[in-house]
Amino acid sequence: MVVLLKKNPDPNQVDNLVAWLRGQNLQVHMSEGTTQTIMGLIGDTTSIDIDLLKALDIVEDVKRIQEPYKNANRKFHPADTVIEVGGVKIGGGNFAIAAGPCSVESEEQICLVAGLVKASGAKLLRGGAFKPRTSPYAFQGMREEGIRLLLEAKEKTGLPIVTEIMDLSHLPLFENVDVIQVGARNMQNFELLKALGHTDKPILLKRGLSSTIQELLMSAEYIMAGGNERVMLCERGIRTFETATRNTLDLSCIPVLKSLTHLPVIIDPSHATGVAKLVPPMAMAAVAAGADGLIIEVHNDPPHAACDGQQSLTPQAFDELVQGIEKLRPYAYRY
Amino acid sequence: MVVLLKKNPDPNQVDNLVAWLRGQNLQVHMSEGTTQTIMGLIGDTTSIDIDLLKALDIVEDVKRIQEPYKNANRKFHPADTVIEVGGVKIGGGNFAIAAGPCSVESEEQICLVAGLVKASGAKLLRGGAFKPRTSPYAFQGMREEGIRLLLEAKEKTGLPIVTEIMDLSHLPLFENVDVIQVGARNMQNFELLKALGHTDKPILLKRGLSSTIQELLMSAEYIMAGGNERVMLCERGIRTFETATRNTLDLSCIPVLKSLTHLPVIIDPSHATGVAKLVPPMAMAAVAAGADGLIIEVHNDPPHAACDGQQSLTPQAFDELVQGIEKLRPYAYRY
Amino acid sequence: MVVLLKKNPDPNQVDNLVAWLRGQNLQVHMSEGTTQTIMGLIGDTTSIDIDLLKALDIVEDVKRIQEPYKNANRKFHPADTVIEVGGVKIGGGNFAIAAGPCSVESEEQICLVAGLVKASGAKLLRGGAFKPRTSPYAFQGMREEGIRLLLEAKEKTGLPIVTEIMDLSHLPLFENVDVIQVGARNMQNFELLKALGHTDKPILLKRGLSSTIQELLMSAEYIMAGGNERVMLCERGIRTFETATRNTLDLSCIPVLKSLTHLPVIIDPSHATGVAKLVPPMAMAAVAAGADGLIIEVHNDPPHAACDGQQSLTPQAFDELVQGIEKLRPYAYRY
Amino acid sequence: MVVLLKKNPDPNQVDNLVAWLRGQNLQVHMSEGTTQTIMGLIGDTTSIDIDLLKALDIVEDVKRIQEPYKNANRKFHPADTVIEVGGVKIGGGNFAIAAGPCSVESEEQICLVAGLVKASGAKLLRGGAFKPRTSPYAFQGMREEGIRLLLEAKEKTGLPIVTEIMDLSHLPLFENVDVIQVGARNMQNFELLKALGHTDKPILLKRGLSSTIQELLMSAEYIMAGGNERVMLCERGIRTFETATRNTLDLSCIPVLKSLTHLPVIIDPSHATGVAKLVPPMAMAAVAAGADGLIIEVHNDPPHAACDGQQSLTPQAFDELVQGIEKLRPYAYRY
Repeated sequence: MVVLLKKNPDPNQVDNLVAWLRGQNLQVHMSEGTTQTIMGLIGDTTSIDIDLLKALDIVEDVKRIQEPYKNANRKFHPADTVIEVGGVKIGGGNFAIAAGPCSVESEEQICLVAGLVKASGAKLLRGGAFKPRTSPYAFQGMREEGIRLLLEAKEKTGLPIVTEIMDLSHLPLFENVDVIQVGARNMQNFELLKALGHTDKPILLKRGLSSTIQELLMSAEYIMAGGNERVMLCERGIRTFETATRNTLDLSCIPVLKSLTHLPVIIDPSHATGVAKLVPPMAMAAVAAGADGLIIEVHNDPPHAACDGQQSLTPQAFDELVQGIEKLRPYAYRY
Repeated sequence: MVVLLKKNPDPNQVDNLVAWLRGQNLQVHMSEGTTQTIMGLIGDTTSIDIDLLKALDIVEDVKRIQEPYKNANRKFHPADTVIEVGGVKIGGGNFAIAAGPCSVESEEQICLVAGLVKASGAKLLRGGAFKPRTSPYAFQGMREEGIRLLLEAKEKTGLPIVTEIMDLSHLPLFENVDVIQVGARNMQNFELLKALGHTDKPILLKRGLSSTIQELLMSAEYIMAGGNERVMLCERGIRTFETATRNTLDLSCIPVLKSLTHLPVIIDPSHATGVAKLVPPMAMAAVAAGADGLIIEVHNDPPHAACDGQQSLTPQAFDELVQGIEKLRPYAYRY
Repeated sequence: MVVLLKKNPDPNQVDNLVAWLRGQNLQVHMSEGTTQTIMGLIGDTTSIDIDLLKALDIVEDVKRIQEPYKNANRKFHPADTVIEVGGVKIGGGNFAIAAGPCSVESEEQICLVAGLVKASGAKLLRGGAFKPRTSPYAFQGMREEGIRLLLEAKEKTGLPIVTEIMDLSHLPLFENVDVIQVGARNMQNFELLKALGHTDKPILLKRGLSSTIQELLMSAEYIMAGGNERVMLCERGIRTFETATRNTLDLSCIPVLKSLTHLPVIIDPSHATGVAKLVPPMAMAAVAAGADGLIIEVHNDPPHAACDGQQSLTPQAFDELVQGIEKLRPYAYRY
Repeated sequence: MVVLLKKNPDPNQVDNLVAWLRGQNLQVHMSEGTTQTIMGLIGDTTSIDIDLLKALDIVEDVKRIQEPYKNANRKFHPADTVIEVGGVKIGGGNFAIAAGPCSVESEEQICLVAGLVKASGAKLLRGGAFKPRTSPYAFQGMREEGIRLLLEAKEKTGLPIVTEIMDLSHLPLFENVDVIQVGARNMQNFELLKALGHTDKPILLKRGLSSTIQELLMSAEYIMAGGNERVMLCERGIRTFETATRNTLDLSCIPVLKSLTHLPVIIDPSHATGVAKLVPPMAMAAVAAGADGLIIEVHNDPPHAACDGQQSLTPQAFDELVQGIEKLRPYAYRY
């Protein structure tokens, strides 16, 4: 961390600041010039509140140089984290696809889709029981009943299930869920993150619509600080001014995250693009860039899906995509 | 709502769609051209799921023309909503300032600041008990104890209090709170919004960091659909690529919201700019543009604030600002 | 400027770097820790290419602390710049409004509007002769003839004229133009900026659609480095994801620019909002925040304007706005 | 195009509007409801100015349904455009890589790099002679001399050259240049685009930092409307709030553009990411998504590059990347 002091700072205040910083176990190096003084802080600055420093009278600016996260940081944990769920491995060279409908609609529908995506090569079943919808008048999901149906599909197909939690009061309902998804709108629902940090479930943490990569890692850190280290990071598009796609898929997050963290990186091309025909090329691109997994919406009858039908692949299109991915993967970028 | 059909659509599917739309109590007008067919839908389309229509084989595009919200819509409720809380009125020509520290830190601190801001002209006391912080290692607020101290400050000064809720499980703690704030990160925490729709408390709903004005109104609609019509909308800066300010304060939301909705509009220049010296000019600008209220961070000792000291005004700077605002208000834009 | 070195850097390369930096007349202060080494550079770093430093093998990151502009920097030129054009002063407490149609359409039209806006209190006449249009099929302006008509309107009314240049080859046509406008799309047309730096005309430099405040100042620096110090900075809205307005007016640029530079700050609420009824409240807000001037579109017959009619005020609406501004100005924020 | 009328519009004005629209060779279909009237316009609306319609008293909103570009539109030109330059084909299944340094620095440097990238498999040589730099104090390129050196490298290696034009007055210098690049900052320099429309050179048109895909196509339309149909579209990253990368590479533009236009799509991962180690995975991703070409910065000695060294690959890293791409390409997504 680097602290730039204002011109002619009060020497007493400078001494106080230096003493306080040393009390935080930091080394303080002063670079005094004729017009500027720079303080270099060496040591663990994770717990230093940058806003607090900036508020001091004598401080003009503060720049963080070290990352403010530890558990998620590759510097302190160089080996890739491999997450195992129901016999499926993700990360550290292990690749898996989760597929299924945006929403669970009926026992027949979820079991049908589960069987089809399994046959095509999906390793996990995704399906929404609790649905975050912008409008209070839109379908809100089958909720508790939806989770029950997902568990039936799991029993029939053997696929571990991934489904989204919307409020920590629902946590007991997720007892038999294999992977708990935190949606983009909840990425900074800190009370929920803390509660998930005390579970033993793998968490699929989606990046917020306008969150930076560092903020995504800080949210992972919330979960990990509670003791749960099984976090998968999921990019699902960020909001930009472009209107041709629902969001803008930021695939460069893959190499950036691979360098900053040891956690697996999953890409969701369905929500990122919002248009079914854009999903296959972006899924291929994600694989080529070295993603550890994909999460893809597949519906038996997209035009009659209860939500997001526009972005769902048919089972046949999904099958073709998986075949394409299997051929592509041996030639993907390796970290 | 306008539906553009693909070229040469299957006539049976078109007939089915028309029949279904008429079943939704909509009039359907067809404009058939040589290369394109447009369907105009007249009636209440609030509950039509636009994504579902877009997913149909025969549909190329769908454009919504009517706003998808009713309770918050000025068309159906032309008169300004006036919210009364502890004798203070907001909206419909009534202006009020909420002021106080980012975080409650001690009984002494909150009572001192409350007394000072009241003396300067603040009508409500703001203060954070539960604090959403990006880092799990930053101060998380005094939580339950913080609310107790706010209630003490309320008793001493008579100022109604505004404080943020972070999870619906905390709702019982807010029984004596006057205005419940929903923070930007929770603007689309739909379970929380639904729960607040069943309370009788005024809600201060902050716009999400990358939310559109329409999404803010849809979140207000979630609360109002539950029966609670006392919602205040708060702009606190949106995320852009500009780095000179913490966020970009979108003051044009004031005239836009005044036209679309009857709900009061509150501006938070402290979080929007993130820098104390930018707060007064932006507060003045908000008043000139016709805001119904302001929410401003004031701290007795900004450099030692537990959070966000950099953006807090001193009590003296706040006092000067209120004086400036009182002189300016008679000449502000009127709707 | 602060340079963070990688772990265990090659000592020879460090010595070379230090020697090179000292050769650039910089003092170099080393802060060596067990895991990190930070170099603090004290002196004039304006001409140091930050990308070049970052590319060095031994460097992990570089942070600029000093602003990379000199002529536009308030630190080196504390007093406000006052720009005088045809007897009108702008900046340093002097306020002026430029008004007129988006496009010059005929002699009759431009003279009519010029007379009306002068009567209402405008001090300069704006009007587009060369029009940057997204579509090649849209009206491109009257071009050379448009400038001739503006000069006639100037002769009749005495109002100095502001009009946009689109290419440096047109510069000879601007010989009698009072203020040359550089449009948002040309803010980084560096060849044009250099050419304008060698003229003696005041320049109205508009901020690019996604430009940062620092980039705007760097473009001003291009003009000033050529010797022309009469630059006015104009905010006209930046691009965000919000769709209710054409762009998002970033009024916080006013206090930010007032602190960073001595140049006058002009606000264009017409292009920023794109909707006539949003213009008056945003113009009032800009004045309250301390803008030095406004540039506003006024058209005698907005529905039949050749371009941007939707955002043009009628002469009557403009007249009311100017009256409102005159009443408001004495109570605006003062720097 | 769909026009929504205001409630109870003046019938005379409606009649006038309908008559005018019919005069533009459009069919007008009215959908009258009790609260709303919608007009559907069928025919060629390319030249209808949407802003003009919106400004009419009786109009509430206008939505464009047809794309506002013709020459670039795949609907009117279904077959892929193949651009041939110096024996190299791009588009329609033909893939090519342009590589070379950000800036031409000396004859020795450009010839060395040209020879190396050719040996690795590059089909074109890129190199900057005129350099758009944010700061007037940064290296501005070798300019005229730089073009001379590129032509020498072309003579020695046989590689066609791509280099950027910054102002139309420089056009005579580009007589022997094979592909003229229009940089992101000039994407809406409409005078330049018009001039290039009258040349017979292939144009590499880069997307602006905050331009939408539709705006990129409108800029291509400017060139094509002048008669020059040989335009390649280049995505080089858009500006977002993310700071871990210089820009955000929007790879979903590939399938979107493939659907909207017949022009080739080129990806520039060097400028998009700004960091050399991010270039190979993003180049692989672009290929997997079906890009027609890549433009990549390669420098013999990145740490001593005159500009953008941080994002340049070494010749060896480039060689490895090309090998990786050759293996990947047979398995890329096909349109």
